[in-house]
Amino acid sequence: MSKLWGGRFAKQTDSLVHQYHASIQFDMRLYNQDITGSIAWAKGLVGAGVLTQDEANTIINGLEAVRSEFANETFEFAANDEDIHTAVERRLTEIVGPVGGKLHTGRSRNDQVATDFRLWVMQATRKIQQHITELQHALVDSAAADLNTPMPGYTHLQHAQPITWGHWALSHFWPLVRDQKRWEQVWTETAVLPLGAGALAGTAYPIDRNALAQELGFHDITPNSLDAVSDRDFVADFLYAAAMLGLHLSRLSEQLILFSSSEFGFVTIDDGYSTGSSLMPQKKNPDTLELTRGKSGRLIGNLMGLLTTLKGLPSTYDKDLQEDKEPVFDTFDTLTLALPVMTGLIQTLRLNPDRMLNQLEPNLLATDLADYLVKRGTPFRQAHSIVGQVVQLAEKQKIRLTDLSLADLQTLNPAFAADVQTVFSFKSALGNRAIPGGTAPAALAAQLDAARKHIN
Amino acid sequence: MSKLWGGRFAKQTDSLVHQYHASIQFDMRLYNQDITGSIAWAKGLVGAGVLTQDEANTIINGLEAVRSEFANETFEFAANDEDIHTAVERRLTEIVGPVGGKLHTGRSRNDQVATDFRLWVMQATRKIQQHITELQHALVDSAAADLNTPMPGYTHLQHAQPITWGHWALSHFWPLVRDQKRWEQVWTETAVLPLGAGALAGTAYPIDRNALAQELGFHDITPNSLDAVSDRDFVADFLYAAAMLGLHLSRLSEQLILFSSSEFGFVTIDDGYSTGSSLMPQKKNPDTLELTRGKSGRLIGNLMGLLTTLKGLPSTYDKDLQEDKEPVFDTFDTLTLALPVMTGLIQTLRLNPDRMLNQLEPNLLATDLADYLVKRGTPFRQAHSIVGQVVQLAEKQKIRLTDLSLADLQTLNPAFAADVQTVFSFKSALGNRAIPGGTAPAALAAQLDAARKHIN
Amino acid sequence: MSKLWGGRFAKQTDSLVHQYHASIQFDMRLYNQDITGSIAWAKGLVGAGVLTQDEANTIINGLEAVRSEFANETFEFAANDEDIHTAVERRLTEIVGPVGGKLHTGRSRNDQVATDFRLWVMQATRKIQQHITELQHALVDSAAADLNTPMPGYTHLQHAQPITWGHWALSHFWPLVRDQKRWEQVWTETAVLPLGAGALAGTAYPIDRNALAQELGFHDITPNSLDAVSDRDFVADFLYAAAMLGLHLSRLSEQLILFSSSEFGFVTIDDGYSTGSSLMPQKKNPDTLELTRGKSGRLIGNLMGLLTTLKGLPSTYDKDLQEDKEPVFDTFDTLTLALPVMTGLIQTLRLNPDRMLNQLEPNLLATDLADYLVKRGTPFRQAHSIVGQVVQLAEKQKIRLTDLSLADLQTLNPAFAADVQTVFSFKSALGNRAIPGGTAPAALAAQLDAARKHIN
Amino acid sequence: MSKLWGGRFAKQTDSLVHQYHASIQFDMRLYNQDITGSIAWAKGLVGAGVLTQDEANTIINGLEAVRSEFANETFEFAANDEDIHTAVERRLTEIVGPVGGKLHTGRSRNDQVATDFRLWVMQATRKIQQHITELQHALVDSAAADLNTPMPGYTHLQHAQPITWGHWALSHFWPLVRDQKRWEQVWTETAVLPLGAGALAGTAYPIDRNALAQELGFHDITPNSLDAVSDRDFVADFLYAAAMLGLHLSRLSEQLILFSSSEFGFVTIDDGYSTGSSLMPQKKNPDTLELTRGKSGRLIGNLMGLLTTLKGLPSTYDKDLQEDKEPVFDTFDTLTLALPVMTGLIQTLRLNPDRMLNQLEPNLLATDLADYLVKRGTPFRQAHSIVGQVVQLAEKQKIRLTDLSLADLQTLNPAFAADVQTVFSFKSALGNRAIPGGTAPAALAAQLDAARKHIN
Repeated sequence: MSKLWGGRFAKQTDSLVHQYHASIQFDMRLYNQDITGSIAWAKGLVGAGVLTQDEANTIINGLEAVRSEFANETFEFAANDEDIHTAVERRLTEIVGPVGGKLHTGRSRNDQVATDFRLWVMQATRKIQQHITELQHALVDSAAADLNTPMPGYTHLQHAQPITWGHWALSHFWPLVRDQKRWEQVWTETAVLPLGAGALAGTAYPIDRNALAQELGFHDITPNSLDAVSDRDFVADFLYAAAMLGLHLSRLSEQLILFSSSEFGFVTIDDGYSTGSSLMPQKKNPDTLELTRGKSGRLIGNLMGLLTTLKGLPSTYDKDLQEDKEPVFDTFDTLTLALPVMTGLIQTLRLNPDRMLNQLEPNLLATDLADYLVKRGTPFRQAHSIVGQVVQLAEKQKIRLTDLSLADLQTLNPAFAADVQTVFSFKSALGNRAIPGGTAPAALAAQLDAARKHIN
Repeated sequence: MSKLWGGRFAKQTDSLVHQYHASIQFDMRLYNQDITGSIAWAKGLVGAGVLTQDEANTIINGLEAVRSEFANETFEFAANDEDIHTAVERRLTEIVGPVGGKLHTGRSRNDQVATDFRLWVMQATRKIQQHITELQHALVDSAAADLNTPMPGYTHLQHAQPITWGHWALSHFWPLVRDQKRWEQVWTETAVLPLGAGALAGTAYPIDRNALAQELGFHDITPNSLDAVSDRDFVADFLYAAAMLGLHLSRLSEQLILFSSSEFGFVTIDDGYSTGSSLMPQKKNPDTLELTRGKSGRLIGNLMGLLTTLKGLPSTYDKDLQEDKEPVFDTFDTLTLALPVMTGLIQTLRLNPDRMLNQLEPNLLATDLADYLVKRGTPFRQAHSIVGQVVQLAEKQKIRLTDLSLADLQTLNPAFAADVQTVFSFKSALGNRAIPGGTAPAALAAQLDAARKHIN
Repeated sequence: MSKLWGGRFAKQTDSLVHQYHASIQFDMRLYNQDITGSIAWAKGLVGAGVLTQDEANTIINGLEAVRSEFANETFEFAANDEDIHTAVERRLTEIVGPVGGKLHTGRSRNDQVATDFRLWVMQATRKIQQHITELQHALVDSAAADLNTPMPGYTHLQHAQPITWGHWALSHFWPLVRDQKRWEQVWTETAVLPLGAGALAGTAYPIDRNALAQELGFHDITPNSLDAVSDRDFVADFLYAAAMLGLHLSRLSEQLILFSSSEFGFVTIDDGYSTGSSLMPQKKNPDTLELTRGKSGRLIGNLMGLLTTLKGLPSTYDKDLQEDKEPVFDTFDTLTLALPVMTGLIQTLRLNPDRMLNQLEPNLLATDLADYLVKRGTPFRQAHSIVGQVVQLAEKQKIRLTDLSLADLQTLNPAFAADVQTVFSFKSALGNRAIPGGTAPAALAAQLDAARKHIN
Repeated sequence: MSKLWGGRFAKQTDSLVHQYHASIQFDMRLYNQDITGSIAWAKGLVGAGVLTQDEANTIINGLEAVRSEFANETFEFAANDEDIHTAVERRLTEIVGPVGGKLHTGRSRNDQVATDFRLWVMQATRKIQQHITELQHALVDSAAADLNTPMPGYTHLQHAQPITWGHWALSHFWPLVRDQKRWEQVWTETAVLPLGAGALAGTAYPIDRNALAQELGFHDITPNSLDAVSDRDFVADFLYAAAMLGLHLSRLSEQLILFSSSEFGFVTIDDGYSTGSSLMPQKKNPDTLELTRGKSGRLIGNLMGLLTTLKGLPSTYDKDLQEDKEPVFDTFDTLTLALPVMTGLIQTLRLNPDRMLNQLEPNLLATDLADYLVKRGTPFRQAHSIVGQVVQLAEKQKIRLTDLSLADLQTLNPAFAADVQTVFSFKSALGNRAIPGGTAPAALAAQLDAARKHIN
């Protein structure tokens, strides 16, 4: 069987050109969606009076036979199968005879491929959401296990204020909540049925598009046939949601890479999630995390590529749009491997609370010292400046902030009194931040509860 | 007054470094939001027992005085005003004296700037949505005015099937509906209050964050203080929504540039929306459209820049995040100019229905010819092939498809009969596509109604 | 055989993690380079006194046997072959026994993979350059065949001034000359040998790195071992050169898509380079060109991905760098298909000089009319303005510029005389632009000569 | 005076449209280049017989007067000055009268703006190169001052092998050498004169383009007039060179941010190059480095924006190209601030050799231990595995590698002998890597010499 469109052509396509145009090597991943969509279409054609019920049954049985061949990996591709739609229809017709040639009535590959691809993206989105939920569980469990285990908090990678592991772990949970919303939006935008748009102007057959949508699990139908075959917003939304997820994972990875260095030593990555060096026998590398961080580039690149491809397209369907699938497949494969690997890594991560405690040094309490002065009536701006001088004095004396004598403190401000010692407690520093979202035990417990509600 | 953080430093900042760090040249656009946020914070500090009501009143009046100076353009910047927050607090303290130094109690620039910026983005989003609505009105009006004016429809920039101007104009309306949803999502994600997160660990003062949120028009508060100062998802969402809007405008522009060429001649751009050449006296260029198409690059670049900046950041707040504002301001300025300009261009666009009609050639009816055979029992796949040969035959005879003799047609397939002439009508070709979203008058009227409902 | 680095590990790698880390599915393309590099290394180890000549011979013969297995597609991968380096060494040791374990002495995968990949990129660059040259030949041939065939020239897609097909075709030749220079630069930057850098600090064995470089076809050695294992500039340069080439092809494609539309009709694409529609029997789509235009997005996305991956990497070799290969392979595969396809399309393109001539309308001569006035003493700025009014007058009278009466012209400016008719010749308009790079026959002949010199 | 092209237009441009099209707010930076280019053009017009020498002198003096107004900041813009070219010609004509209207003879803004912009980019490139050289000097000086100061070397941010500060500092020098080559290429590609190309087809006046090129400092003239007005490769090359430079700076910054953390503590950033916190009085943040790291996003975004803008442009000059200047100006401003700031930071950086020494732990010698076995005849692959077990044994015993007893070592391999202690010296580990590019004192001295030669 020749191409679907050969009638008007005097010459065969150049073989390199055939290879250039062929999408079968990647769009065969759509076989299931293509067959499901075609079965729905066959039913629609009965309603439209194009097929008899018998013809439709023959076609549907034939399509299920083709599906089995794919599922059993016995499907044999022909040299002329330029895409999955061609391959399925070619094989269908081999199985059921000329009636197979009626299936494409009133349909174009333009609306067909948009439908198939939306179906695939809808399912892919659900799978990614599930993987995100699993990672969220791992983070919540890690937070719960060490909710109040103290560690230094950082801004600018400098010691800032004491926080806890639970606080930190949950700070990587909430970005995933935003990701979930974004993916939900992807699903909603994708689940709008283009079938019936034909090549561009709408099919000339009275198909019930709403029934088709219901049958295929779409929540709505596209309102304009030209836009229906042209619209790839759902693809961009998918790639953007993935890029954002990748960014969140890159930041989580970066922080854990730092925490697992010799110098920090806050965490130990499980042997099952590390690899070694071909030259240096002592190495245990956090390269699972490095790969995840690195792959954020790939995800952003996939988004960038599609946006550029879409820019300035002149008509409803241009062949440029064939470039929409590979970045999505690559993105899906990347995420469905990266997410469970990251989940496993978090689940098996071991904390070293001693190393974390070891880094809790008095400078982390400087804000509390300023608050001490504020409570004694010093305007904050002045208190900040005084404590800045306290820090400098300690540095000059090469001692710790907490080892300055009261007399020294009082030379900088007379409001310092003996009870200043009460400030120098990491426990109370943590407890003071009892505001929602803060680091105090009760606030963290409430936050953990809220997080659990999100994923259950 | 010196910098807000100078106490601990033995040396002044190098002057080039000061210039490098300064954000005042762009973040002064946040003055209004900064003052509004500070007034709310002052009220919050009363509730938390940090300020007396009198102190708060003094501060609030002072802040309003500062706001007036900005509004009247009498505000004078000082050399040390490294950012808008510093500038406002510095001036406040000049006006109200040392009590001004109490305003920053329990607050950090980390949560302050996040709050200010979210407020700005919330307002910017609403303005952009309004501009989109206006463009939608222009497209709907254009569609309504020529709902059934026939023109060739294109795929691959080749004549495909007849459509109408109304159908075409609405095909650029629906992408804007998707844009509106995206911007609504931006607003929702942005309107979550970070204030109270302090530098990273939460403020140590019992501020009522929910009351703050209500006062400032946020619908929720951030659940984790570390994430609150680190999260720039709302910025990425803003830039992504803009990139998608820019893509849609680039495709609309591209098509109108083609339509206004000598070769197409479908539309005439109003003189008020065109410019000429410095060398060639006859030129009237569609350069408004070219600028819009070109600016889609800038919008995508702004998104890519931010995503790269965010990649792999190691801690809660890193100064890299200061790079978040300029792309947003540039994007806002671009869209709030491009959108009304495009609206005006559409409103003043003149159609040349004769030129459009002139391009309606019989090949556009080939699908209808195949459908003719299908109705007479030929499977579509075979009908498609036969009509392909019909097209080839006409080309060979150098005549139009519709000028082939019945005898010629019958040599290709005996099913052709005298009534084949009924196929050769653009009006009936348009009318045949009566499916929702299709090109038939009733379908278009329904679509126009649906579009109007969306914007009213 | 287990992993190359397992000695220090108490636990096996998780299987999903193994899959995450594995690069064998794509880096097996480096097998030839890996073996060539290893043979050179074995020779180097003889010079360094690590291997005896006999041991080296055994290893080299073993490596050649492995190469044959790859070439004959009889090589069998083992489950633990995480990358091509592991696979080759594993198989080598199976063939030659324990002496195979001596090959990796003083070498790390860090310098090994950088060497292999540079070798691959050097060869890939040469292949791409050859394909570009072929496309340049096709453009030169097309230019030569219709060097002086007139057509309208465009700016802003509006008729501007008359040009010729030869002029136009050569305008797409010179960007490829710039591309060639860029690729030459890629080759030069790539051909610097990192081998000997070890993991990061340099090998501890006295290998003659310059001899290695010479043996492997590199023109220099890397000057700093830390930089040697970290540097991926050559990869970015490769992807950037490809993105620029892709842009040039996208512009060529866009123009030919326009030229092959019904409305322009300047060219006919050969059937062998077009495809049809599954629904519309009459369609012949320029989708080869659309694919090429669309693929510019993919090429830019590949560049963007790598740049983001490289951003902010913290140490010499981080596993993020493993993400460097797939974008390069994808880019190479894209270009080595797109380039010959575009070459074939140009070679088989048919011009329709009548359609081009048909679009040569008098407005294209407006600049020449202004020049006429300039020669009679009117300052150009004023002449431009007068001719603008001439154009407007013709539009108002609904006649062609050239059909205005002399009296009409003289009402706008008395300098117009009877000889103004001499201006109204496309031939002389073309001939007037005799400056180097211009559109006059002699200038074009010289340009064609220069172009030919570039590629011969 | 009205617009340069108003003659043919019946209506004024809409005011918002005027604002949309105006480039004067950014292209006024080209005033110097525009005037220089116009002076050369005036001279060229004398040679072509269009201007008398007297007219040319009048124009040139007028242009110099305009230049003075700009230099003295007394130039007054008019409402209709849509771009710098219009503004200069408008003012020129005010000064010299109608003869000013002759300047634009045979020239178009298309070739004029390309010439102006290339001149600007040529000068900008030279300035950036100079700034890079200064940073290279700072790195070389830092390397020289601590050429052999030992520190841990990292791969995967894990301790790998001992290196020295000099080795590390130079590893950031050589990427800048590659940058210099890239910028040199930018200069060469930019310095090709487009003037004389006219609007697209070449000027109709016999201007000596080669003389113009020489006068303006270009090394060649463009070979094809259509390409000349269309080509923005030099802009992309500029932005790409900047993106790569930004990447190199981002990696340098990332490493210094790590090194200045409490946990590493290898370096202290000078107070003049740090800033503090508005809330936390103890903070001294490496935010100069964070800004530099963050700005790599902006530089990449600028590149991506331009590439997208260029994609698929349909004709020689489209107004989309007006989007070429802002990213270049922003990039230039970013680099000419970031580079000297980074130079100053490096010059004032203080090393803490004790902290670096403190992190030199025995695991860093594991490779040397494997080499010890290799010298005693064990194949490297086996030696690697044995030392892996040595590391594991030490971990199990919770002692340092170097504290294992000889007996313990010999249980793992009998080849270990008493002289194994000689391996446990960081000095000899450093000295062993004497290969070019390696870490031994002589190799480093040679490398330092080579680096100095590059910049002197």
